[in-house]
Amino acid sequence: MKALVKESAAPGFKLKDVEEPRIREDEVLIRVRRAGVCGTDVHIYDWDAWAKGRCKPPFVVGHEFEGDRVTAEGHIVDGRCLLCRTGNSHVCPYTRIIGVDRDGCFAEYISMPATNVWHLADAISYDVGGIHDPMGNAFHTVLTAEIPGAIVLITGCGPIGIFAVGICRAAGASRIIATDVNDTRLALAKSMGANEAVHPEQAEKIVKDATGGLGADVVLEMSGVPAAIHQAFALVRVGGRVQMLGIPSKKVDFDLATEVIFKGLTIYGVVGRRMYQTWHQMTRFLLSGEFDPTPVITHRFPLAEADAAIAAIKSGEAGKVIFEIA
Amino acid sequence: MKALVKESAAPGFKLKDVEEPRIREDEVLIRVRRAGVCGTDVHIYDWDAWAKGRCKPPFVVGHEFEGDRVTAEGHIVDGRCLLCRTGNSHVCPYTRIIGVDRDGCFAEYISMPATNVWHLADAISYDVGGIHDPMGNAFHTVLTAEIPGAIVLITGCGPIGIFAVGICRAAGASRIIATDVNDTRLALAKSMGANEAVHPEQAEKIVKDATGGLGADVVLEMSGVPAAIHQAFALVRVGGRVQMLGIPSKKVDFDLATEVIFKGLTIYGVVGRRMYQTWHQMTRFLLSGEFDPTPVITHRFPLAEADAAIAAIKSGEAGKVIFEIA
Amino acid sequence: MKALVKESAAPGFKLKDVEEPRIREDEVLIRVRRAGVCGTDVHIYDWDAWAKGRCKPPFVVGHEFEGDRVTAEGHIVDGRCLLCRTGNSHVCPYTRIIGVDRDGCFAEYISMPATNVWHLADAISYDVGGIHDPMGNAFHTVLTAEIPGAIVLITGCGPIGIFAVGICRAAGASRIIATDVNDTRLALAKSMGANEAVHPEQAEKIVKDATGGLGADVVLEMSGVPAAIHQAFALVRVGGRVQMLGIPSKKVDFDLATEVIFKGLTIYGVVGRRMYQTWHQMTRFLLSGEFDPTPVITHRFPLAEADAAIAAIKSGEAGKVIFEIA
Amino acid sequence: MKALVKESAAPGFKLKDVEEPRIREDEVLIRVRRAGVCGTDVHIYDWDAWAKGRCKPPFVVGHEFEGDRVTAEGHIVDGRCLLCRTGNSHVCPYTRIIGVDRDGCFAEYISMPATNVWHLADAISYDVGGIHDPMGNAFHTVLTAEIPGAIVLITGCGPIGIFAVGICRAAGASRIIATDVNDTRLALAKSMGANEAVHPEQAEKIVKDATGGLGADVVLEMSGVPAAIHQAFALVRVGGRVQMLGIPSKKVDFDLATEVIFKGLTIYGVVGRRMYQTWHQMTRFLLSGEFDPTPVITHRFPLAEADAAIAAIKSGEAGKVIFEIA
Repeated sequence: MKALVKESAAPGFKLKDVEEPRIREDEVLIRVRRAGVCGTDVHIYDWDAWAKGRCKPPFVVGHEFEGDRVTAEGHIVDGRCLLCRTGNSHVCPYTRIIGVDRDGCFAEYISMPATNVWHLADAISYDVGGIHDPMGNAFHTVLTAEIPGAIVLITGCGPIGIFAVGICRAAGASRIIATDVNDTRLALAKSMGANEAVHPEQAEKIVKDATGGLGADVVLEMSGVPAAIHQAFALVRVGGRVQMLGIPSKKVDFDLATEVIFKGLTIYGVVGRRMYQTWHQMTRFLLSGEFDPTPVITHRFPLAEADAAIAAIKSGEAGKVIFEIA
Repeated sequence: MKALVKESAAPGFKLKDVEEPRIREDEVLIRVRRAGVCGTDVHIYDWDAWAKGRCKPPFVVGHEFEGDRVTAEGHIVDGRCLLCRTGNSHVCPYTRIIGVDRDGCFAEYISMPATNVWHLADAISYDVGGIHDPMGNAFHTVLTAEIPGAIVLITGCGPIGIFAVGICRAAGASRIIATDVNDTRLALAKSMGANEAVHPEQAEKIVKDATGGLGADVVLEMSGVPAAIHQAFALVRVGGRVQMLGIPSKKVDFDLATEVIFKGLTIYGVVGRRMYQTWHQMTRFLLSGEFDPTPVITHRFPLAEADAAIAAIKSGEAGKVIFEIA
Repeated sequence: MKALVKESAAPGFKLKDVEEPRIREDEVLIRVRRAGVCGTDVHIYDWDAWAKGRCKPPFVVGHEFEGDRVTAEGHIVDGRCLLCRTGNSHVCPYTRIIGVDRDGCFAEYISMPATNVWHLADAISYDVGGIHDPMGNAFHTVLTAEIPGAIVLITGCGPIGIFAVGICRAAGASRIIATDVNDTRLALAKSMGANEAVHPEQAEKIVKDATGGLGADVVLEMSGVPAAIHQAFALVRVGGRVQMLGIPSKKVDFDLATEVIFKGLTIYGVVGRRMYQTWHQMTRFLLSGEFDPTPVITHRFPLAEADAAIAAIKSGEAGKVIFEIA
Repeated sequence: MKALVKESAAPGFKLKDVEEPRIREDEVLIRVRRAGVCGTDVHIYDWDAWAKGRCKPPFVVGHEFEGDRVTAEGHIVDGRCLLCRTGNSHVCPYTRIIGVDRDGCFAEYISMPATNVWHLADAISYDVGGIHDPMGNAFHTVLTAEIPGAIVLITGCGPIGIFAVGICRAAGASRIIATDVNDTRLALAKSMGANEAVHPEQAEKIVKDATGGLGADVVLEMSGVPAAIHQAFALVRVGGRVQMLGIPSKKVDFDLATEVIFKGLTIYGVVGRRMYQTWHQMTRFLLSGEFDPTPVITHRFPLAEADAAIAAIKSGEAGKVIFEIA
């Protein structure tokens, strides 16, 4: 079968013919139809420091997909450790990720443990099926905060940030203020329901005006950019909550006293998706029609145009980029 | 001033001239413009068993109102007992209620402790200001359950039930099924956002179909009718939550084993409004435009037509009934 | 092998030779060493209305056990329904219970799905290993309430009630008041750490004196007796919490208005054990030495003396009754 | 009256005669008997950068005290802002602190708003009454985490850290590991119930051994020392919780990706005491005898020996230091 392979410890992907995956008794073979491209794939493509430390080529890349009317949780957990046994498998220390630690979904077929498969209703399109993984990150981030009635600041309008805008809107946020440096992304955030979608330097005045100077009840940090992170902690109100999903590429200098402790904040680090509470909530929001992520998908490529797909993401102009495989 | 007075231990109200209230240093005098009529007022009017046990005529009736661009929490709590000191003043054992335990708001003026006053933004109409108390009951009921993504059954479409429909809609419920025996009320529930608003005997099939036979995640029991209460417990899913606000007029025979314990339910008895978390949430929903209770107000009367107002409520056809006082 | 069998639709158990269980690939065969006798077993023995409606003889009875240094969760759930997938497998609608819906542990061997097995540390005795199931009910009941600093009333001092006394003590309850009609059980409750262990008619004064007249923060209803249930609701404070585990044998007449709603209570129906959060917590309490259930075990019998074991439970004088099998 | 005064913008306190405080109608005058000395007082004494930016001499120092059988919450909040109205007055933006923003308790008399006064039962000694404020910080830190059954690491054994050890012990922690660089403090931690009280470099092995390599469920960061903070985040398990109370004196370089986000942590910044939930819980633990802070009080001075009191704290050898005033 055709597959995008990380062939060696060097930049780039290669489209090549590989053997179809074999499955064990507790696995299923899925014919992939759509696959989402993620920032993680860009790291692997670029072969940056993180990728070098984590990945062992050769392997098939990709971890977001739809096929045979299912999608799947890409974190394969051991199911028997303390974390898994107590409802925290999203942080199972033995997690193996498809497209990172084993063969992924940028291919015609993928094998998945049956336990990780999530069935899609007929009403869910192939495209939307193919992006459940990053939508799930957004649902996890939003729905572990208390959103009904909240004034929410979202720093960073990559695809997950934009999804989060729509989920906050559906979940009863009173006001959603989104920031990014890119106008295309801000326009997407606006179309998904942000009351204001602005450049970071405009955020302070808007948040302060909306909250009587107090700050946002909840901040969703979706950028990983140090300046945005500091702004997140500056603009959350005392006693508020910061959900951290964006991954900074290096250390950040923190004034813990004034940025965290004296403000009495709660901070939550978001990893993956709650298995499978998040998946269930996501399905409910999609089927009710409260949340439609379709406008976020801005680019579609065949597997053969992987370089162009990666370039689209790097441009900072894209919403969600997907591969059309079958 | 003119006031509707419960003059003696007998049915009815009397419109008469009474002295204007005097205020203490920690109280404010408010010129009443609108006042909502509540089921409690009907009990006092009818002088039923509950009223006989609780009220000591003569006193001015009424506890929901707007005036001078404020409304107020009608539960006057002691502020210093254990409950008050630990964030539970809504169940303060020393609560005195305006229009029940002291003079109320069916009058041209009312005195209120300054601490109980809630300021209204310019965008809030007189009418909506006048019904914050029962809306608050609905907000308390809805927002202490986990609504985003939930399938919700609301049994009973009196004004508070209909408000709850609209709040569930705003707060991200996936599906809202409302029941009542009265078609006017069902139409109101539909207009506030219920996916289905049906007679009780139709509810089981709809809930089961919507939930794969499992039952609703959350049931809001708003009727106090024994048959509806049993249906609430029958149609909530295992591990689900029942919020109880409707007050049954007599004892109910419960099969605790099958209706509560084996289902692993959580049940919450709703009293008043959280002070003042509920008020803050309500204000947020109203100002954001997510929730507009205006369609629920179906009848308006002057104080002089109190008998007609009470009759409108008793007809079972009314949404919210209010007095226009100034 | 020898096993206690419910042979037909009539009272009693029969000790007889049966075939050893066969196991599937995902099951394990366990040589049983100790087995606890539960009230459920008494219902099956007596062949009462519940047993008639639920059980299909012949089958091997018993669901609490230790063997080969493991114990097991006796609720075999489907693992794939919505409840199981969202952390609520304790209320999985497809649950099958060992000793009720399939062969149980009053036998020399039992087969169990590997997923249900819970390993025991060397420090855990055979006896304590054999009663993890009912201890787990008690842990579930206690640790889903907020115990540190709480004044707790426990109505009913059967084995699970007595375990709950010790768990409340270990978990930081400020005061534990336990009730029962049997003095032997009250003595056991006292020995496990109850501040007061008294007959029901003495409870009101003690609770009121301990709480300034307000009532207990948390009540654990462990009896299923209607009078005790009403006392539970009478003696919990406004805004408090009632955990219901005891199963009433028939309907109970409730004044929902004054017993539940006006008090602003939260009620939780306890089913089984959280899988496997409860098991993990239980192991932590046992290994730290904070909680030692050994004194609760008052009677030991061989399988051949099943009638005597059942009689001991029915006497109302027993703590926990166990079979010594190997 | 005699009082310890911060007289001018320079190091030191001065014992001098000042006028007795006058009280308003909503205040009470309290004759001080005991007063605790806090790290904040040391900052004011030293006139460090924080003190220079916050305090306006002259004023009477001190914020922890007992007198006339009451103690008091030293944070005087406005009671009417959004935070105060929604149960978060501990982070009221309008807070004024006694001994910092207005005259404090290192004096023969202090005036306090009546709302801030907390009555002490006869069983509470003067000394223990005098240290409710810092004990309250410890109770707030401990009881907002989930302690029953938890393995807890406490980094920093100043008085609040040592109190936290005892509270964790009372609240059902399975194992308490405390760290400090000072052996006297470690001995105090041990005497209050720590299973292990060790130097920081020994903590990793102990925590890992106790948790199968996974890390502590909860870490209470009580030191403010950057190395300890990094250790806190290194030794908390994935999905765990870090409560931050210790105030770092400068910025800390954080690897948010590996220290917070990928671990899926929850972090909570602890400010003051929950008003008045924390005070109620503290009273319950003290009166039940579960928690006795007396051993933590190691030094007693008259007001005239303020320099010696400050020196005792700076030595790092002290537990709690108090003034005996009357």
